[in-house]
Amino acid sequence: MRIREIHLTPVAFRDPPLLNASGIHEPWALRTIVEVVTDDGLSGLGETYGDRSHLERLRAAAPALIGVEVHAHHAQYAAVAATVGGDVFVDQHGLTGAGSNQKTVDAVFSPFEVACLDIRGKAAGLRVADLLGGPVREAVPYSAYLFYKWAGHPGEDEDRFGAALDPEGIAAQARLFVEEYGFGSIKLKGGVLPPDEEIEAVHALREAFPDLPLRIDPNAAWTPETSIRVGRALEGVLEYLEDPAPEIEGMARVAPEVPMKLATNMCVVTHAHLPPALARGAIGVLLTDHHYWGGLLRSTQVAALCETFGLELSMHSNTHLGISLAAMTHLAAAVPNLNHACDTHTPWQQGQDVVVPGALRFVEGAVPLPQAPGLGVELDRDALGALHENYLRCGVERRDDTAYMRRFDPTFQPKRAHW
Amino acid sequence: MRIREIHLTPVAFRDPPLLNASGIHEPWALRTIVEVVTDDGLSGLGETYGDRSHLERLRAAAPALIGVEVHAHHAQYAAVAATVGGDVFVDQHGLTGAGSNQKTVDAVFSPFEVACLDIRGKAAGLRVADLLGGPVREAVPYSAYLFYKWAGHPGEDEDRFGAALDPEGIAAQARLFVEEYGFGSIKLKGGVLPPDEEIEAVHALREAFPDLPLRIDPNAAWTPETSIRVGRALEGVLEYLEDPAPEIEGMARVAPEVPMKLATNMCVVTHAHLPPALARGAIGVLLTDHHYWGGLLRSTQVAALCETFGLELSMHSNTHLGISLAAMTHLAAAVPNLNHACDTHTPWQQGQDVVVPGALRFVEGAVPLPQAPGLGVELDRDALGALHENYLRCGVERRDDTAYMRRFDPTFQPKRAHW
Repeated sequence: MRIREIHLTPVAFRDPPLLNASGIHEPWALRTIVEVVTDDGLSGLGETYGDRSHLERLRAAAPALIGVEVHAHHAQYAAVAATVGGDVFVDQHGLTGAGSNQKTVDAVFSPFEVACLDIRGKAAGLRVADLLGGPVREAVPYSAYLFYKWAGHPGEDEDRFGAALDPEGIAAQARLFVEEYGFGSIKLKGGVLPPDEEIEAVHALREAFPDLPLRIDPNAAWTPETSIRVGRALEGVLEYLEDPAPEIEGMARVAPEVPMKLATNMCVVTHAHLPPALARGAIGVLLTDHHYWGGLLRSTQVAALCETFGLELSMHSNTHLGISLAAMTHLAAAVPNLNHACDTHTPWQQGQDVVVPGALRFVEGAVPLPQAPGLGVELDRDALGALHENYLRCGVERRDDTAYMRRFDPTFQPKRAHW
Repeated sequence: MRIREIHLTPVAFRDPPLLNASGIHEPWALRTIVEVVTDDGLSGLGETYGDRSHLERLRAAAPALIGVEVHAHHAQYAAVAATVGGDVFVDQHGLTGAGSNQKTVDAVFSPFEVACLDIRGKAAGLRVADLLGGPVREAVPYSAYLFYKWAGHPGEDEDRFGAALDPEGIAAQARLFVEEYGFGSIKLKGGVLPPDEEIEAVHALREAFPDLPLRIDPNAAWTPETSIRVGRALEGVLEYLEDPAPEIEGMARVAPEVPMKLATNMCVVTHAHLPPALARGAIGVLLTDHHYWGGLLRSTQVAALCETFGLELSMHSNTHLGISLAAMTHLAAAVPNLNHACDTHTPWQQGQDVVVPGALRFVEGAVPLPQAPGLGVELDRDALGALHENYLRCGVERRDDTAYMRRFDPTFQPKRAHW
């Protein structure tokens, strides 16, 4: 069963004005939808970033995969790596850590691997989770992912979520998400307001939801000293503290001084970071992301490594659509040592998607594993066409939260170790 | 596709009088042959140790697997672990390092997992290597595995290999193996004679085979001081030095003082050993063995971990039959970072086997990957019956190289850090 065709479709969809340490989400978020078709007519789906330079690398890699067996994981990886060469992709928002050649190869490879697993599942009548060792849970818990945000994009009407710029706004957002989705844990994207205000917001969440695990992720907006101060101020309140300070060096300074584990999807984002991070004791929780850890199979290997080294495991999310949610759900279902609810941006997309509705839903904050073979989701070609039209018209070609913020605040600077 | 039946058949086959640091191989070697049968009639094969206490644990684990899905790797593992409880199996020969609960669970689980992969491959029309990421090599290189040995078991005729008790005997044995199998590298089991005699033997091999990579494995028979002396005496001659001294502590003392990498299948034999061994820089090469690393899938995860931490990879072998050789070959074919030829005892079995001849053969020292679905080997029921008859008659119930040696030398002591 060999790869006969690959189709890459960049799409754009509406995204609310969510604030973070790099700036603010643009009105359009980008993704690339990957379809792989075999010589016997089976097709599989993948989803990845939509930034132009990433899309160009996907387009360069796709021809190298034509004719390759869908089970030949290692051969596919080598073929992709050869097309990437020594390239390094550095995203503009900087929220997923340093770029490197390894990370670039892993990110380009990932959606093709997911699509091949989708095909392999369909061919064998098995779910992707079955191909990854079998589900250890039939529903995957996700956390409410709260953001400071403006009421609406400048010049547009207020969106349905409204503004959230203080503890009350954050608590109200949490109530909306918990009511609508049943989330059993809550993450706050921080690094937006001065740390004391974000500490207050976390306390407001604790008051509103006495029993739910809480996390805050300032995307390395704090110095190690501030991180230690915040960590101590939130003793007994956080399940973990995510990326308070930059780099392994900064995290290693904070880790022994705070009462909770540090989590990261920024200072450890590829295999080369694991040995030094472990040697330094910089982290206690790894937030994997199959989109840049080389796909689902390699992510299960990273999960096994975490178990060996006593790292806890959680899952990072960028803005995404249903194919990614399905892939994340299959992966998380098949990882025994998933210790925390996964992140997802899904609620912010308000139903915009490229997959036929119904296969993915939230039940008490968890996504039941789709039961159809493969990923268990089906491409909605009309929706794909509409979102591709958006892409062609929206004028956004790469995610750049800082540049968009500077349209409204020309002096804005990304908040790296700022406070 | 669920497991309906499991058959466990202990077998015994003739083994030559091979010497090692623990004593000498008994005339009969033991294995257990595992057959798993699904509810739709597919069957798969596994092979593991034949020691009675291991066999009893296999018998305790098997019922827990009945009714479990063949793809449900994690569920199978959990089911086996539950039957093993807190047990620790310690083999009598002591040549594969310390026993632990983790290693016991992994060893009991392994043959069932291999059998399930055999079934999964047959069901999907794929080779086991395809299920492990696809082969990166179509033939797996093995090394000649030389032993000091007596001419024959006491009271029996000389065997076809004859005696090997000095450098000339070892070189002659190497010539026989290289001629018959085409091996491209050579391993000498040491720890039998005083180190200077074994150094001489290695030099004799270098002289006889100027171009072949050489290794020696004294099974921790040397002190760290002796290990350093031997390592330096063999500078430029060895591709690696395997388990010269006991434990991570001993290896960590030797590693920085010798010019070649240290390899192990003794001081790192389960996941818990990896963090301290890496932190101490105790080893440069890990010799995995799916029989005690929890099967093939978990071995690929260990291989990925080795790549992350810059450990080289090779493969350990105990005395085994064709099912194990097939499993080792599929695994090694699908591991990109296999850096050295694998060990195998196959030549010492002189064709005794439980699989139908023909699927496994050596071509220029390598075993071409069997091409039929699954493991690609088929059970020879007549041969299985005959080897089971051996088991019932031979009177050996556990491997004990030391006890057998003491029949001829009552004062014999295992050579742990002896020289």
